Amino acid sequence: MDERIQKQLAFALEIDKVKNVFRQTHLSNAGRSENDAEHSWHLAVMAYLLKEYANEDIDVAKTMILCLIHDIVEIDAGDTYAYDDTQLQTQKAREDQAKQRIFSLLPKEQADEFIALFDEFEANETAEARFAHALDNLQPLILNDSNDGADWKAHDVTAERIYKRHNHTKLGSEKLFAVSDEIIRENIQKGNLKV
Amino acid sequence: MDERIQKQLAFALEIDKVKNVFRQTHLSNAGRSENDAEHSWHLAVMAYLLKEYANEDIDVAKTMILCLIHDIVEIDAGDTYAYDDTQLQTQKAREDQAKQRIFSLLPKEQADEFIALFDEFEANETAEARFAHALDNLQPLILNDSNDGADWKAHDVTAERIYKRHNHTKLGSEKLFAVSDEIIRENIQKGNLKV
Repeated sequence: MDERIQKQLAFALEIDKVKNVFRQTHLSNAGRSENDAEHSWHLAVMAYLLKEYANEDIDVAKTMILCLIHDIVEIDAGDTYAYDDTQLQTQKAREDQAKQRIFSLLPKEQADEFIALFDEFEANETAEARFAHALDNLQPLILNDSNDGADWKAHDVTAERIYKRHNHTKLGSEKLFAVSDEIIRENIQKGNLKV
Repeated sequence: MDERIQKQLAFALEIDKVKNVFRQTHLSNAGRSENDAEHSWHLAVMAYLLKEYANEDIDVAKTMILCLIHDIVEIDAGDTYAYDDTQLQTQKAREDQAKQRIFSLLPKEQADEFIALFDEFEANETAEARFAHALDNLQPLILNDSNDGADWKAHDVTAERIYKRHNHTKLGSEKLFAVSDEIIRENIQKGNLKV
């Protein structure tokens, strides 16, 4: 086996660990916590399914790979809950270190490519990254909506915090923001989200 | 919310259930059983990572979506172990029924598109489907190899059965077959696979 494919398979095996990084979000039907691999799978399917709603023309393959790898750094850095201010302060430093270690398992030019894709998602400045972020906001919303807001209740999340996050969805998809807004309003009415 | 996006989100929520369909393969480091969503995520990342090894030019987005949705029917049909002859006999009928129910949650033309993608994977007649199948063979191989063949030992799988499956990898990727062959031979030598 040549060195190039050895490195690629070592990376493929290493990222298996992301299946053991659990998020705050719970699966539908009040299931267990969701892990990063499942979450990323869900975003990538939704990228293909909902691509008609991106504000701008997107490269679907690019959008899918951004979705698929955006949480790989959490193998080392752990999951950072979107509404935990303390964790959010150290998130970038933790993830930068993880990014270097994990992607450097790959052949040099492929490591550079994957790091660039990861950075593109984080920078949120391309049409693909903005649409991927819109999906990253919408996916936990539909799960939480299906569970009567159980995750929001558990963390005392307010509508104001939710909107602070979901307002960014507009950048990637006006349509998905409108739909999210409708779901959020329904949950405020039901008492699942505090105003 | 218009009917089209209502249907699309109902589908997005329904497929969450594939995270609860568990396979015979175990995660690396002798972890728990892997579920279909994680497995599909892994294949889609590998499709992008290893695309240089496809025998023919492939559309990467197409290959990724084939990988991402190929197990969704198992929400109803359950996982069929690759080396269980009894289950294999009824697999197609069970999966056809599931395919109709689950994809029909989508708007009509999108249901048709997803069913066509699912059928394309199953028929294994396009470059993308053949490469996706090669990955579907390679991914459990690298997990099982990392676990000293524990899944093969648990099911008394022989090298002959393994080759019967892996020989198809050649159709999608000569290179990934050569690598798989090397891994299989090593596992025969180690006594992890019976001859």
